[in-house]
Amino acid sequence: MTRHETAFADLEAAFPGRIERGEAVRAQHGAGDSWHPAALPDAVFMARTTEEVAQAVKLCAAHGCPIVPFGAGSCIEGQVNATQGGLCIDLSQMAKLLRVSPEDMDCTVQTGLTRQALNEELRATGLFLPIDIGAHATLGGMASTRASGTMTVRHGTMADLVMGLTVVLPDGQIVRTGGRARKSSSGYDLTHLFIGAEGTLGIITELTLRLTGIPEASKAGLYSFPSIEAATQTVVEALQFGLCLNRIELMDALQVKAINAYNKTELPEQPTLLVDLAGSEQQVDTDRDTFDELASENGAELHPVATPEDYSKVWALRHSALYAARGLRPGCKSLSTDVCVPVSELPRILAETSADLDAEGIIAPMHGHVGDGNFHLVMLFDEEDAAEKARVQAAHGRLVERAIALGGTATGEHGVGLGKKSYLEAEHGAGLELMKVLKRAVDPANLMNPGKIFDL
Amino acid sequence: MTRHETAFADLEAAFPGRIERGEAVRAQHGAGDSWHPAALPDAVFMARTTEEVAQAVKLCAAHGCPIVPFGAGSCIEGQVNATQGGLCIDLSQMAKLLRVSPEDMDCTVQTGLTRQALNEELRATGLFLPIDIGAHATLGGMASTRASGTMTVRHGTMADLVMGLTVVLPDGQIVRTGGRARKSSSGYDLTHLFIGAEGTLGIITELTLRLTGIPEASKAGLYSFPSIEAATQTVVEALQFGLCLNRIELMDALQVKAINAYNKTELPEQPTLLVDLAGSEQQVDTDRDTFDELASENGAELHPVATPEDYSKVWALRHSALYAARGLRPGCKSLSTDVCVPVSELPRILAETSADLDAEGIIAPMHGHVGDGNFHLVMLFDEEDAAEKARVQAAHGRLVERAIALGGTATGEHGVGLGKKSYLEAEHGAGLELMKVLKRAVDPANLMNPGKIFDL
Repeated sequence: MTRHETAFADLEAAFPGRIERGEAVRAQHGAGDSWHPAALPDAVFMARTTEEVAQAVKLCAAHGCPIVPFGAGSCIEGQVNATQGGLCIDLSQMAKLLRVSPEDMDCTVQTGLTRQALNEELRATGLFLPIDIGAHATLGGMASTRASGTMTVRHGTMADLVMGLTVVLPDGQIVRTGGRARKSSSGYDLTHLFIGAEGTLGIITELTLRLTGIPEASKAGLYSFPSIEAATQTVVEALQFGLCLNRIELMDALQVKAINAYNKTELPEQPTLLVDLAGSEQQVDTDRDTFDELASENGAELHPVATPEDYSKVWALRHSALYAARGLRPGCKSLSTDVCVPVSELPRILAETSADLDAEGIIAPMHGHVGDGNFHLVMLFDEEDAAEKARVQAAHGRLVERAIALGGTATGEHGVGLGKKSYLEAEHGAGLELMKVLKRAVDPANLMNPGKIFDL
Repeated sequence: MTRHETAFADLEAAFPGRIERGEAVRAQHGAGDSWHPAALPDAVFMARTTEEVAQAVKLCAAHGCPIVPFGAGSCIEGQVNATQGGLCIDLSQMAKLLRVSPEDMDCTVQTGLTRQALNEELRATGLFLPIDIGAHATLGGMASTRASGTMTVRHGTMADLVMGLTVVLPDGQIVRTGGRARKSSSGYDLTHLFIGAEGTLGIITELTLRLTGIPEASKAGLYSFPSIEAATQTVVEALQFGLCLNRIELMDALQVKAINAYNKTELPEQPTLLVDLAGSEQQVDTDRDTFDELASENGAELHPVATPEDYSKVWALRHSALYAARGLRPGCKSLSTDVCVPVSELPRILAETSADLDAEGIIAPMHGHVGDGNFHLVMLFDEEDAAEKARVQAAHGRLVERAIALGGTATGEHGVGLGKKSYLEAEHGAGLELMKVLKRAVDPANLMNPGKIFDL
């Protein structure tokens, strides 16, 4: 028995046989892909339509029952953990591509569609959604955490590519924000209010997305540098030259070592840039020559990525980074974190962090979307070793404080969830109180994913 | 005597000799560049710092005195008109470039700096802010109306280029939103809350802006088409090809006629595209050849724009569009409006609107940023002729309704102000009520630019 039995009775009456209470289903919905302890919802509802979501929310609201939206469960900061129990609304069955307009290069999808599935469905149109993250995440979840990934340097984040949303508000009302026009000055920006709100202001059920054309040509390059500074200096120069960069990814020596061990490759275990250029054949060739020159001048060793097979192999290696990192200490937990700073501050924060981790004896390979100043650390620790865990958490705290002090942010793309709440005051100051003002106005009963981003 | 004398007495005590009450100064601050009747503030304060703005706002808040922020007064929808009197805070003296980082391609400015002045100051860095609007507007004002202009097809709007803000809230608190990181998932998006809010949620006093490199090469082309459909079809194809478009502007035959008369030029009086390509020399040449082919296949006549002088001349002609339009009926008023639709709907809305205007005998040349689906009509009328004015306003209403019905928006870049308020319910439905929820939460006394965007 939980204190929300009356809500569940009403929900069961409205959706007979569809309010799941079993341990196994609840356990599947109590945690994302993170080090945060699981917290199970009291019940799970697999919604099929926006109207069903609205009806379920209304019934929960009537009984003061917390609501946690759930997509693919790939979140990293505990965003789906039901720390206050209540109803988990699973949106993964709402996974249709509703419309696509090749002329306008946009589409509308249901929230539970994954980006991989969307891009499969779009293949015949020559268009795709240029967000490339490691996880098999749903598009609603990606909007809710303001996801971005490797192609942000060229195409922006979910915040730049979502044109409009359908959202179920905390009282069960359905709101449509934005639209299909490429731009608008018509009133407050409700779309961006919900992007990055991690489900605390409402549940996204549909998204209108801006697409882009598959480029005529793509070519990659792999470059080993004598130092992190030399690599990031090359990134700054490439950005200033306006090269047709599609992805520009940095890995430190430890991350390359982990990838070598995991994939049985023999890359030089040095700071490494993986670069992807995209555009016309001619432009890609010209710009890769320019990039090669910039990299050489900064002391890089160039590794040819000549064939389409090599290209695929290089990006597969990059996408193995997280699992490869975890493989460095099998059986260990990993605290995956990301911060983002102005690109020019990367050498400093990486040097300081590296010194800190070395001093603490913490194993934490680094990879990052350095064109945006965003990087990830996978901090490994033995969960049985309380002292080590505390040391890792303290070093993590210092990393975030360093990022904020350099004009950066506590998280570039993972979101706040449970894991970054304690840093928001340092980052936002009086802005944190303004966020709470907005939350109280939109969700006065604090039922929508309560306890995420901040506590009231 | 106004009902805010106690506020003005306190303001005068805080800022001796700086609270202007004279008719001339008030008249300079009572209207923008629009057909809306002027509405004078009761007093004007030229602020010099964020702290002064905060202090003035606190004093106004203590006495319930309305506050209207003022930049260059170039707004088109009556955003600065003080319809409820109160204090106008003029920000035009806060016009410093505070910092620029060439490595990170960003800068921080005070709110009253104009984009022209910013780009002058940036010249030595090789960077610029890629927002090209006709008006000499302040950057704070441009953020407040979510301005965009001719380069949006390539670089986005102010919503895409503002990285962070300093804002004085309605209670006088100072909040800093966003920051210098290229992206963030750290909590609610407060920056976009204020962009496009037209000063109704707070006063923007500083902006951190994303810059871009001045391109190696820019080339223009001028193309006369047999029809609007042929021109917009060319636009759709050019967008799908991913050509390095920097600007792509459409003018109808009447607009070209107006430009010929105003500038004593002899352009063919047909639907015309003005195109600007920017990138490397090679890319620009290749893409202009491709564009020439696409245009020819759609029946266009090509007019060479060969020299840098021709290039400047072509864009000067384009920027004369508004004054040229007004010149068609000297002494008349003009209702300048803009809407935005999905690009594929342009032929339909332009044909329907043209038929409507012809049937009503209304003179209204059209020019637009068609790469975004955004276009402007300058509807001319004799202010002494009440029947004609009513006919123009009714036709304007039908234009906006048509845009909304086609999935578009009531305004692409001018904002709502006083002129578009009546269309917001049709466009946003329940979203309009959500906007009011946000306004009431942030500005419970409704003192910040009251009566703009919507009435409470």
